[in-house]
Parts: sequence; structure tokens; C-alpha cells
Amino acid sequence: MTLVVVGSVALDSVETPAHGKRDDVLGGSAVFFSYTASFFTSVRLSGVIGEDWPPQHLQMLKARSIDTTGLQVIQGGKSFRWSGRYLANMNDRETLSLDLNVMAQFDPVLPEHYRQCKFLFLANGATEIQLRVIEQCPAAELIVADTMDHWIINDRENVLKLLKRIDGLVLNDSEAKLLTGEENLVRAGRAVLKLGPRFVVVKKGEHGAMFFSGEESCVLPAYPTCHVVDPTGAGDCFAGGMMGYLAEQGNYEPKTLKQALAYGTVVASFCVEDFSLDRLKQIDRAAIESRMADYRQMLTF
Amino acid sequence: MTLVVVGSVALDSVETPAHGKRDDVLGGSAVFFSYTASFFTSVRLSGVIGEDWPPQHLQMLKARSIDTTGLQVIQGGKSFRWSGRYLANMNDRETLSLDLNVMAQFDPVLPEHYRQCKFLFLANGATEIQLRVIEQCPAAELIVADTMDHWIINDRENVLKLLKRIDGLVLNDSEAKLLTGEENLVRAGRAVLKLGPRFVVVKKGEHGAMFFSGEESCVLPAYPTCHVVDPTGAGDCFAGGMMGYLAEQGNYEPKTLKQALAYGTVVASFCVEDFSLDRLKQIDRAAIESRMADYRQMLTF
Repeated sequence: MTLVVVGSVALDSVETPAHGKRDDVLGGSAVFFSYTASFFTSVRLSGVIGEDWPPQHLQMLKARSIDTTGLQVIQGGKSFRWSGRYLANMNDRETLSLDLNVMAQFDPVLPEHYRQCKFLFLANGATEIQLRVIEQCPAAELIVADTMDHWIINDRENVLKLLKRIDGLVLNDSEAKLLTGEENLVRAGRAVLKLGPRFVVVKKGEHGAMFFSGEESCVLPAYPTCHVVDPTGAGDCFAGGMMGYLAEQGNYEPKTLKQALAYGTVVASFCVEDFSLDRLKQIDRAAIESRMADYRQMLTF
Repeated sequence: MTLVVVGSVALDSVETPAHGKRDDVLGGSAVFFSYTASFFTSVRLSGVIGEDWPPQHLQMLKARSIDTTGLQVIQGGKSFRWSGRYLANMNDRETLSLDLNVMAQFDPVLPEHYRQCKFLFLANGATEIQLRVIEQCPAAELIVADTMDHWIINDRENVLKLLKRIDGLVLNDSEAKLLTGEENLVRAGRAVLKLGPRFVVVKKGEHGAMFFSGEESCVLPAYPTCHVVDPTGAGDCFAGGMMGYLAEQGNYEPKTLKQALAYGTVVASFCVEDFSLDRLKQIDRAAIESRMADYRQMLTF
């Protein structure tokens, strides 16, 4: 089934402790999400870019059969830019600069064929915008959103409204604690369920992810990789793998959801092995299935 | 097969952010280890206590069929005492006081029947002492040791000597990084293997444990519990469940080792649910098997 994602499209500059730095590489939540989801299903992307956007990035996305009709180009505008630096542990990072540019006025108007989507992912972004996108997708059967500390702190009212409109929420461990006031992640996950969504995924970075629904609570470890170059986008790739697999299967039953979490985990482990989409560009579905088999084996005893 | 453990026997005082404090409760690495291992096999404990040691603790251990012949009582001496305080995240703690007392002169001379053991666990303690215990156990087939940052920093030479004499090493994530200089835990684990042991377990607290051997690398998540009261001793319980299961099975083949890791994970999850051994005292092997079945189910997709 077709999957729509609305989120950021960016040019990232990333500094790492052991693998040098890269300037103005392709990034953004909707880009990482779309690329990984496209291993599983067809994806329609909604975002905004400036006139400075390198044309090869657009061609690359189209070559993956990612529908970019919903990618607005603002004439005379500059694209969203983020730069950050990873600390030695490769799990913590500091933002060096954030230039919203065209993202500051982003108010997506989805093309007509996007509005018929059954599966919708709202990547991290202004909660008000996420709510407005939901209004445009009356046929959506499964709506999953990401959010972050900024919105939980500064727009709590809308976040609580959003939680009543979505089926699933994806957020980081620290954000789950912030949202619920619970330090224990199992309690935090269950507390989020009481706020509305039918399921919650709590991302723990290098330590994997926890899942909570009415049917089950579980935790899956990250796939261990010895070659961590740049974790930027890993959380978005996780969501892309998860939603891509669900859309491919065309259902979101408990068993499918759990398999989707495992696929999300596996594709995210590729993402961190190089800058931007570079590692993902080297793999195909067979490589994902092969690592998935390893991952299953690792968790069998 | 019989399992011998050498380590600390202590009276702990623990402060927690949400569940109050307890003074002078039963603790120590060899105590947590023995108690959990005794769910699986018969255990012989070696340690040292002072004249102030509460007799009911000794009776309780004996009632679990834990052999305490090797528990030295120093007349006129005071028992080892530790006190600490957990931070809000329940994963980090600060030591408030540490009174070595009789532990300062601990130089175990194992009883003759201990020396025939096939399975030996050297709980965290002075590396020099750990080396001397190994000399006393010429029949040991499987020797596993724990260590900590203090010895890695201040007695590196002996730690490196120890690594050449043992089959398995158990240590925390931060200690694995300290020992090897590797920030990535997969690299750190593999680097430890090069220093001698046939397998390494890297404990990650609430995030589970990683395992490395010539045959495989894997990571298992902690069993998620919503009721974390006091994590003291969880790492020792993990080791006790792991070694207890191995001794029960009488082998340490790759498949058995991995099952042992899962048992260690499950018993450790009980330990944190109350102070001292209080939660462990409420359970039996059937409760362990029941949670083990849940854990297996959680990791099946």
C-alpha cells in the first residue's frame, strides 16, 4: 500500500570524532525515511526545498521511485540546513547550527493523489503542521508520528491533541520521559498509551527500541555493528523500515508490527555505517534479508 | 557440576530516589551470585566476614544449600560495608562510603573440597587475589572472572595476566572501553578476546548485555520490568544465573552459553525489583522458567 511521509528535507554538515566531516550532504527526516521505506513499498514524499537544492539529489530520489510531486520548491528560498558534531561515544551530539530557511514557512498542501493514502508517517516537525496534514488524509488507516523535546516542551497542548489523532507514536527515550514524567521506560511507554495512540515505539539509539501496545510490551536490541561512522538519520531510517514493511504487508496486526520493528532495527544499522545515505545506497533488499536472518539468529537461544 | 565463587560478602546501605532507603542489608558480589546460582546448582562460597555478621544471613545461605565452609570469620573484625545512592535514572549511582574492614586482609585459602571444582567464578575483587585463587583450583575447566575500573586502572599488569588465565570475562560497558581504548562496544568486546579469554560478556545495565566469542557476537536486551526498586547486585545475579545454568548443564558449548546469558538476564530482572535478595527470596525455578518463556516470546518475530 502507498505510504506518504511529510517531514524535513535538508543539507547536513556532520563532524565525527573518528571519521572526519562532511559538508552539505543529503539529509532530513523525510529523506532518510523515504529512502529506507522504498526498499519495501512505494513512497510519496512531502517536504520543502530552496532554489539552491542540488538537482542530483532529486534525481536520485526519483530513481528510487519515490514520488516527489509533494516536494515544494520555493523560488529564491534557501534549503533547510543542519550542522552537528558527534561526541566520542557516537550516541550524543551537539547541534552547531540550524538554519530553518524555507522550513520556517513550510505548510504542506498535499497533492490530490497523496490524500488517498492508507499509511501516513508524520516525521518530526511542528505539531500544528502534523495536525493539518492529518486533516488532509481522511482515508488514512494507520497514522504514525514522530515528535521531539522541543514540541513536548513548547507546544504540549497540540502534542496532546496529536496523540488523540494518531495510531502510533515514535519518540526517543528522553522524550518519552519528558512527555510522561516517568523515569522508568516501561512505565513511560504505558503512560503514553493512555494519552491516545494504540502503540508507542521508544527509540534508545545504540541500545535498540521498546514497543508498547495493548497486546504487548517488548524490547529489541540494536543490531550490533562495529563500524559506526555517522548515526544521523538512524531514527528516521528505523521508522522508514518499520512503516515501509507495514505498508508492504498491508496490515498492522501485532505480529506484523513486531516484524516491522525488527526490519526498522536492521535498516537503521546500515544507516550508521556511513555518512548520509551512502551505506544505504550500497545495499538492496537481499542485504536487508541477510542481516535480518543474522538478527533473528542472534535472538534465538 | 559444583560451582565455586570467591568474592565479597557485605552489608549494604542503599538510598533510592523513589523507594526510600535500607540500612545494613545483605549484599556483596559473592552473596548475590551464590543465591541466584543456587536456583540451578550447588554452590560453594568463599569470602570473609567479621564478628558482627548477623547469624540469620548465614543460616539463610545454608538453607539454600550454599556451602559456606569457605566463608572465613575474622574474630574481632568488622564486616565489609558499602553504602550508595541511586540517581533518578536508576542506572547511575554514587558510592557514599566504603569500609573494606575484614576485606582488606582477605586472602582466601580454599577448603580442600572446593579445590576440586570444575566451574569457578571470581567475582569482582583484587586481581592478585583472583590469580591466587586460580592457583588453588587446578581442576577447574571453566574459569570466569569479573573485574572493575579500579583494577584496570591501578593494576593493569595483573589484569592482563588474569586475562591469559581465564576462559571468560564479565565486565561493564565503561570498563570494556577503559580496558581496550575502543569506544565501540563490538570492537571493545573483540579486542578483549585478543587479550586471552575465549568469551567476554559486556554488561550494559538496563540495556542488557553483549557477548563475544570466536563463534559469535550477540546482544541480548534486559528483560523490561516496570518495577525497579534497587539495581544493586543485578550484575552479580546475572553472572550467578549464567554460571549456575552452565554448571547445571555441565558444559559450555556455544548453544549452552547463549542460553546461560538469557538465564542470567532473567534472574537479574528479578533482583532489581526489590532491595537486597528480597525479590529473589519470593521466587523459585518455576518463576524463572515462566519469565524465561516470556523473554523468549518477546524476542520472537
